[in-house]
Amino acid sequence: MTKLKLGVIGTGRIGKVHIATLVQSVPDAEVVAVADINIEGAKILAAQFGISFVTPDYKNVINHPEVDAVVICSPTDTHAKYIVEAAQAGKHIFCEKPVDLSLAVIRNAIDEVEKAGVKLMVGFNRRFDPNFKKVHDMVKAGKVGEPNILKITSRDPAPPPAEYVAVSGGMFLDMTIHDFDMARYIVGSEVTEVYVKAAVLVDPAIGEAGDVDTAIITLTFENGAIGVIDNSRKAVYGYDQRVEIFGSKGMVSADNNFPDNHRYFSSEGIQGSLPLNFFMDRYLDAYSTELKAFCDAVIHDKPVPVGGQDGLLSVAIGLAAKKSVAEGRPVKLNEIR
Amino acid sequence: MTKLKLGVIGTGRIGKVHIATLVQSVPDAEVVAVADINIEGAKILAAQFGISFVTPDYKNVINHPEVDAVVICSPTDTHAKYIVEAAQAGKHIFCEKPVDLSLAVIRNAIDEVEKAGVKLMVGFNRRFDPNFKKVHDMVKAGKVGEPNILKITSRDPAPPPAEYVAVSGGMFLDMTIHDFDMARYIVGSEVTEVYVKAAVLVDPAIGEAGDVDTAIITLTFENGAIGVIDNSRKAVYGYDQRVEIFGSKGMVSADNNFPDNHRYFSSEGIQGSLPLNFFMDRYLDAYSTELKAFCDAVIHDKPVPVGGQDGLLSVAIGLAAKKSVAEGRPVKLNEIR
Amino acid sequence: MTKLKLGVIGTGRIGKVHIATLVQSVPDAEVVAVADINIEGAKILAAQFGISFVTPDYKNVINHPEVDAVVICSPTDTHAKYIVEAAQAGKHIFCEKPVDLSLAVIRNAIDEVEKAGVKLMVGFNRRFDPNFKKVHDMVKAGKVGEPNILKITSRDPAPPPAEYVAVSGGMFLDMTIHDFDMARYIVGSEVTEVYVKAAVLVDPAIGEAGDVDTAIITLTFENGAIGVIDNSRKAVYGYDQRVEIFGSKGMVSADNNFPDNHRYFSSEGIQGSLPLNFFMDRYLDAYSTELKAFCDAVIHDKPVPVGGQDGLLSVAIGLAAKKSVAEGRPVKLNEIR
Amino acid sequence: MTKLKLGVIGTGRIGKVHIATLVQSVPDAEVVAVADINIEGAKILAAQFGISFVTPDYKNVINHPEVDAVVICSPTDTHAKYIVEAAQAGKHIFCEKPVDLSLAVIRNAIDEVEKAGVKLMVGFNRRFDPNFKKVHDMVKAGKVGEPNILKITSRDPAPPPAEYVAVSGGMFLDMTIHDFDMARYIVGSEVTEVYVKAAVLVDPAIGEAGDVDTAIITLTFENGAIGVIDNSRKAVYGYDQRVEIFGSKGMVSADNNFPDNHRYFSSEGIQGSLPLNFFMDRYLDAYSTELKAFCDAVIHDKPVPVGGQDGLLSVAIGLAAKKSVAEGRPVKLNEIR
Repeated sequence: MTKLKLGVIGTGRIGKVHIATLVQSVPDAEVVAVADINIEGAKILAAQFGISFVTPDYKNVINHPEVDAVVICSPTDTHAKYIVEAAQAGKHIFCEKPVDLSLAVIRNAIDEVEKAGVKLMVGFNRRFDPNFKKVHDMVKAGKVGEPNILKITSRDPAPPPAEYVAVSGGMFLDMTIHDFDMARYIVGSEVTEVYVKAAVLVDPAIGEAGDVDTAIITLTFENGAIGVIDNSRKAVYGYDQRVEIFGSKGMVSADNNFPDNHRYFSSEGIQGSLPLNFFMDRYLDAYSTELKAFCDAVIHDKPVPVGGQDGLLSVAIGLAAKKSVAEGRPVKLNEIR
Repeated sequence: MTKLKLGVIGTGRIGKVHIATLVQSVPDAEVVAVADINIEGAKILAAQFGISFVTPDYKNVINHPEVDAVVICSPTDTHAKYIVEAAQAGKHIFCEKPVDLSLAVIRNAIDEVEKAGVKLMVGFNRRFDPNFKKVHDMVKAGKVGEPNILKITSRDPAPPPAEYVAVSGGMFLDMTIHDFDMARYIVGSEVTEVYVKAAVLVDPAIGEAGDVDTAIITLTFENGAIGVIDNSRKAVYGYDQRVEIFGSKGMVSADNNFPDNHRYFSSEGIQGSLPLNFFMDRYLDAYSTELKAFCDAVIHDKPVPVGGQDGLLSVAIGLAAKKSVAEGRPVKLNEIR
Repeated sequence: MTKLKLGVIGTGRIGKVHIATLVQSVPDAEVVAVADINIEGAKILAAQFGISFVTPDYKNVINHPEVDAVVICSPTDTHAKYIVEAAQAGKHIFCEKPVDLSLAVIRNAIDEVEKAGVKLMVGFNRRFDPNFKKVHDMVKAGKVGEPNILKITSRDPAPPPAEYVAVSGGMFLDMTIHDFDMARYIVGSEVTEVYVKAAVLVDPAIGEAGDVDTAIITLTFENGAIGVIDNSRKAVYGYDQRVEIFGSKGMVSADNNFPDNHRYFSSEGIQGSLPLNFFMDRYLDAYSTELKAFCDAVIHDKPVPVGGQDGLLSVAIGLAAKKSVAEGRPVKLNEIR
Repeated sequence: MTKLKLGVIGTGRIGKVHIATLVQSVPDAEVVAVADINIEGAKILAAQFGISFVTPDYKNVINHPEVDAVVICSPTDTHAKYIVEAAQAGKHIFCEKPVDLSLAVIRNAIDEVEKAGVKLMVGFNRRFDPNFKKVHDMVKAGKVGEPNILKITSRDPAPPPAEYVAVSGGMFLDMTIHDFDMARYIVGSEVTEVYVKAAVLVDPAIGEAGDVDTAIITLTFENGAIGVIDNSRKAVYGYDQRVEIFGSKGMVSADNNFPDNHRYFSSEGIQGSLPLNFFMDRYLDAYSTELKAFCDAVIHDKPVPVGGQDGLLSVAIGLAAKKSVAEGRPVKLNEIR
């Protein structure tokens, strides 16, 4: 089997993670080209990982004759444009989430992908986390019976700068979007209604930027199940990512991951380590499993595990969540376009 | 110090628990009279616990010259009436929850209690559970900083008969009412708004009786915190009672209680015991602590830890929850009368 | 069924526990007589629990015509003597451990009990702890297959005064004796050899009094299993009582008990409560289950769950342990008389 | 900084692990040569990891002009010989444990290493496990005060073939040797005496081959602490590697690692995943940390974290353990040569 040759667009935080992962942990992959307008940073990275072709222009990656597939790690507002161009060039595509903040734009990108007959996978890495995957698999195997109640706790260790939330689309589209995808993934049914109670309890500047930093989000699913996501932009004890699904035959839960499992017993009490504090530590394995799955789907012409529709629907739920906050009422998904 | 002499009205399930608890575990208490229209059952109980005065008529307990305080364990629709009569007779009162399903009726009972200058304590036993009390105490001591998110999971091991829900006032007033009180107790602030997403996923007969059996309830508090309660009438793995409070300085959680703490490691996996399955097992200690607190408040003329207003407010939140389900929208507490 | 009428000899710490337990938690029991040379303390206790007959002379309890059974809670050096006299008076006997420090004296007491045809139960209360009982029951049900390795951790929260160890027979006979009984109970086989590595690491005064305060004790069992007990007189984090049994089909373990199950997550780490710190808290339920079992055995003429041989063998293992420390070598049980 | 150029001798199970780790996870390392008498296997491995020089003769690796350091992964009986030759060739050495089964041979190898002024590190990978390292670091930081009791549980998921134990030196030298090193590492003091109670409970063929498969090993340390290791060749629930250290100020423990942290609650009980079943899964991170530490020590001329004396002492304890079993008595370390 020949290796899949990939070109990476964007060498910011997540671009670096993906390049390192592809080079070190995905034997079927070879990174042959990399693009970033910040050409100096890209050059350093390319040298470090032995990538020979470096360019400031993403077009040179898309059109590079050796490139079989592109990995899009550039800012959100470029995602859809690059997807369309890559599809038109006949390249397979792995794109970071969210695909775009506009459903129309996403739909157009999906159309172009389908027209070109290439594969598009969206980077919902948490589906490849061993804990969440285990919960999903057990639900799918019928271990909880009919799902009744889903609970997701998702809290970040520290809030982003207020400037960021203005361009990110806000908490529901930059952070909760992962939880919306996880909700669909675990329950195995589509969300039909969203109600959000949100607040600004972490940083007033976030409120002034027009966003919220704390929320309780009620979801209704097509199969009758109901669910709740609780979010905070700041958990002082670290990155808090838990899930629980309760049904007619039982419950499955997944706790956080920890750097070690020591326990210390002193006269003061019993103490243990805090959860892994950074999303790249928590989801390290998930990133490599995700990229392996993408390469595997392309090489063996199998369906990608997270497709364009998944990218579209998570954004749709995020838009419904924003509307619910704005109007103070439950919002049906079919109200969103 | 002389003992507090008590008369118990109602010898059903909870009446029996309270009598046994008072006799065996509350050294300051003496049960001197007991009433139940089912006089045969009452006589057996009285003989078992050495109580000399048994009557089918609750009035004989209220007016018994030796009785200092009455413990009302009769059906809900009699609670307010007996409170009023006991107050007028100058007796202190411990009353099971809910006080009544009508706010007006409860307000009237509270008025009479205040007029009479007697004490009224409402039986929210979970406040005396060592786990929930620990969480409350840590919040109060500032350990979590400003409360941001409250999470209560409260699931029963088995649903009540559908006939019961018709007279009980429904899930929010017979079951969730405990969680509403717990929410106020732990957050230390009043609920201002309720939104409920409810479903019938356990037993269609409950739906036919006009009630729900599964719910996710979003609460807004006066201090800015938000909270969520999830309820089910049927958890196949047993009685599930957990709480978690997240704030600016940390999080405190309390897990279920278990009959033992063994773990079994075999080639099949790791197994442990299910949570205590019955509310009387789970809250055994809470019942005696609760009654000790009542006796202590009366004997030493101290404020009761759970008063008439607590009884009133939990019902008000329950009524708001019902309205939210009926109208499919968030309901402000000040809409409720 | 008539109640079993008991007389209690000795109203020190454990005597008080047993009287309170019998009165409050054992419906089949009635304490009708109590003896202590410290007559003032005994009178206060008798008044508190409504016991009419109080005497400074144990003989008056043994010979009291209403007494069916005696509960011996006096100092160790009186146990055997009182057992013999009670047996000769035709009374059933519950005796605290150890029965005596001399095997010959214990054997003589057992002989007299057998001659008299009365029942003798020895107070190894830990057998009635729900955790240890669960482990025992699972071993007996074959869940671990053939037992291979037993591990008992048994550490006290604080050392006794050095004067105490001089008269108690030392750590192996006043503290580890419980673990020796637990080892036999869980493995379900007799100990054939003991090797002890001991040290004085907690309090030099204990060493000066001729005893040790820290030990690792290796046990060999008749069925081929091997085991280890680790002891310390002082665990700063509280009373530490754990067990683990490993076999051909799996492992069962039991952890400590805790006053509550809260967990606190702050920026400093995750914290929980320390184990229950006092043996009476940890084994509260065990004491009442134990006395119920005794009353049940007497009333229904069933074998007692912990008999004279159990009392004898735990002392024999303790004496072997002392010999092993003295001689620095493994000691066979059949070397002990 | 230039990379450290390494030659690997032996491409069996552990050789493969080390090569993959060096290539993928140690940025400072470059594997330039590899030797194995099984030249075909070595060639495949070399091709897979892009290593250009492959030879059947270990001498060609030791004498390769580019090789700065050799990694010895060949059978135990060649370790010392290769160490000596590599030292004489002026190459730094990483050698798998045990260095040899003879103390005299190990001493000679250490002498040659010292004479040559090269570095020798012994592969006690568990010291680099995040859990055990945390326990070690907390002890060193004084968190447990004076160490009193060390407990190590170390059980393999499946026994080796009986033929293996004949050449491996037996359980104490092929398996427990890791625990002996761990004991010294965690307590921070030398072992002065060993007593072993051993049995053949897993596989009679192991007994026929002259070895044991189950053991309880009591250790005495120079600083006064005592310790116990329990071993089994077969734990049906997987690889069981735990440690606990108890001292005057508290206790630190480390539990096993698990593939995920899900919990499943059904009417049958609560279940979770078994521990990681294979030593390469459990110690994956430890292998890369270990090799990074070696490369770092060589490149920056720092002391290696696990040296020749560590290799010598763990074998000495193993020989004392064998003698203790043979003679049925505690054996002082100074009896071993």
